[in-house]
Amino acid sequence: MFAVSLCSLWYSLLILAHFTYLLIGAVIFQILEREAESNNRNHFQLEKLHFLANYTCLDGPALEKFVQVILYAWEKGVNPSGNSTNPSNWDFSSSFFFAGTVVTTIGYGNLSPSTVSGQVFCVFYALCGIPLNLAFLKQMGKCLTIHLGRLETGMRFCFLSQKAVEALAVSLFFITGSLLFLVIPPLLFSYVEGWTFGEAFYFAFITLSTIGFGDYVVGEKAAAVASVYLKLPGLTLLHKSARCWKIKVRCELRQTHLTRSYMFLLKGTDPGKEYISLYRCLAGIWIIFALAWLALILNMGVRIMENLVILTHP
Amino acid sequence: MFAVSLCSLWYSLLILAHFTYLLIGAVIFQILEREAESNNRNHFQLEKLHFLANYTCLDGPALEKFVQVILYAWEKGVNPSGNSTNPSNWDFSSSFFFAGTVVTTIGYGNLSPSTVSGQVFCVFYALCGIPLNLAFLKQMGKCLTIHLGRLETGMRFCFLSQKAVEALAVSLFFITGSLLFLVIPPLLFSYVEGWTFGEAFYFAFITLSTIGFGDYVVGEKAAAVASVYLKLPGLTLLHKSARCWKIKVRCELRQTHLTRSYMFLLKGTDPGKEYISLYRCLAGIWIIFALAWLALILNMGVRIMENLVILTHP
Ligand SMILES: [K+]
Ligand SMILES: [K+]
Repeated sequence: MFAVSLCSLWYSLLILAHFTYLLIGAVIFQILEREAESNNRNHFQLEKLHFLANYTCLDGPALEKFVQVILYAWEKGVNPSGNSTNPSNWDFSSSFFFAGTVVTTIGYGNLSPSTVSGQVFCVFYALCGIPLNLAFLKQMGKCLTIHLGRLETGMRFCFLSQKAVEALAVSLFFITGSLLFLVIPPLLFSYVEGWTFGEAFYFAFITLSTIGFGDYVVGEKAAAVASVYLKLPGLTLLHKSARCWKIKVRCELRQTHLTRSYMFLLKGTDPGKEYISLYRCLAGIWIIFALAWLALILNMGVRIMENLVILTHP
Repeated sequence: MFAVSLCSLWYSLLILAHFTYLLIGAVIFQILEREAESNNRNHFQLEKLHFLANYTCLDGPALEKFVQVILYAWEKGVNPSGNSTNPSNWDFSSSFFFAGTVVTTIGYGNLSPSTVSGQVFCVFYALCGIPLNLAFLKQMGKCLTIHLGRLETGMRFCFLSQKAVEALAVSLFFITGSLLFLVIPPLLFSYVEGWTFGEAFYFAFITLSTIGFGDYVVGEKAAAVASVYLKLPGLTLLHKSARCWKIKVRCELRQTHLTRSYMFLLKGTDPGKEYISLYRCLAGIWIIFALAWLALILNMGVRIMENLVILTHP
């Protein structure tokens, strides 16, 4: 009983430390990256308008140049489709999600710091965050083991056979864990993101092995869906301003002002935003618990292997 | 002496297993992904030509549509700039590099499997490869420790003070390791890739912490430099074929044939290709040794911490 309460104390302290660390990271990354992002975004919008103004009848090299511009924007973290009223990459929930991918070393890379200060902070953040996350997962694994032990003790009263109870508890733990962490979340993701179940499972595996290619990232599609609401009027604006450009060539200041005021008008109304935050939080919780469960399963595997080695070489 | 030779035996076996595993992975990934990539690539080239043919004077929505096409191509792993004679993403050295990023869980994501068979194979490859890689790094760490022990014994004959020798050996190990793994490689990368030293160091850190965002990847710029040789004639071809399109609308078969024969002509001459392979191999060796060294340093840190705890609580 004492072990359990001590474990809970340590555990709640670690949870507190971990989440505070993530919160702090989220805020600082947001502060560091947001302005550079908005500059890049405006710059890309101007490039687009330049392009429309200059190449009314475009040819091969012009097209190549434009492709280069789009890829550059993409590398700088600007979503080149739509207009500059797209939701920011570095809003709080995304920044929090990013901090989570740093400390777990998943590192999807769909977001990454582009400013020097952001990169420097990222290095120090990871230096402290990765050990903290490992300690957190270890402690969580210990607590899960203790709960498993209690489950075993509870079952022993009913069945009385030690070996059978242990095997049953472990397999119960394994099966419920698999369902909770490897079957139900991919089903949910495939439903929300429009992936096949195979793709969703692949995403789950790549995430929980901490490989994190970033070819599938949870919440990206949802963000795109939300930005559709903003897209149609945005397109009309882009279209209009392009025409304005063609008539009054090089009225850059006016255009920037127009975009800014349009952004201001839209600022209050971000449909689907809260829903995405909630969804991403759920995904984050899934990652943490599933990683702890996985570490435990791997530990058990190692223990079973060692027992087998001892049994075969007495 | 016996421990050292046993260690070397185990070690050479593990090296052999590890490299065989990487080679097998590289070949299979290449087989699985190459055809899908070439299809995507041809499809994107056709889209580009369609675009040029249809929108001689383009407007906002057309531009948006084109941006979507480019991003889709990018997601499918096709480099949208240049033409379809760009060097393949899934040539052997890239595929080998990819297999390395999977087993180390770095997962840059600049390459990732796009076919279902590739994704299924990737899951099973990682399932076996990650433990193998961990075992490999552990064994390498043990061997490095033994060498460190021999270094200490060697030094003891000269200095005779145990504590001083140990501290000196550890600090020598730390300093030479830092130079070899954290200072010289970033210097080399910054020279070859045209990054600042800060960026190169950031890349090294993100790689060795196995976060692997993929915003900076070694050898990508070099590949781009090599593709410049192919770019200028390619552009002329694109330009020409676009004109051909405008005259004889919908002569798809002819165009595909033209591109194919052009690709065939260029096939023998890939300038800078061998140089990139060598450079990537060096980078791979750096990653493996640096990871082993880092694991050892972290182990030492933990041991020192434990000793301190024992000293303060006797
Ligand atoms: K990773
Ligand atoms: K990654």
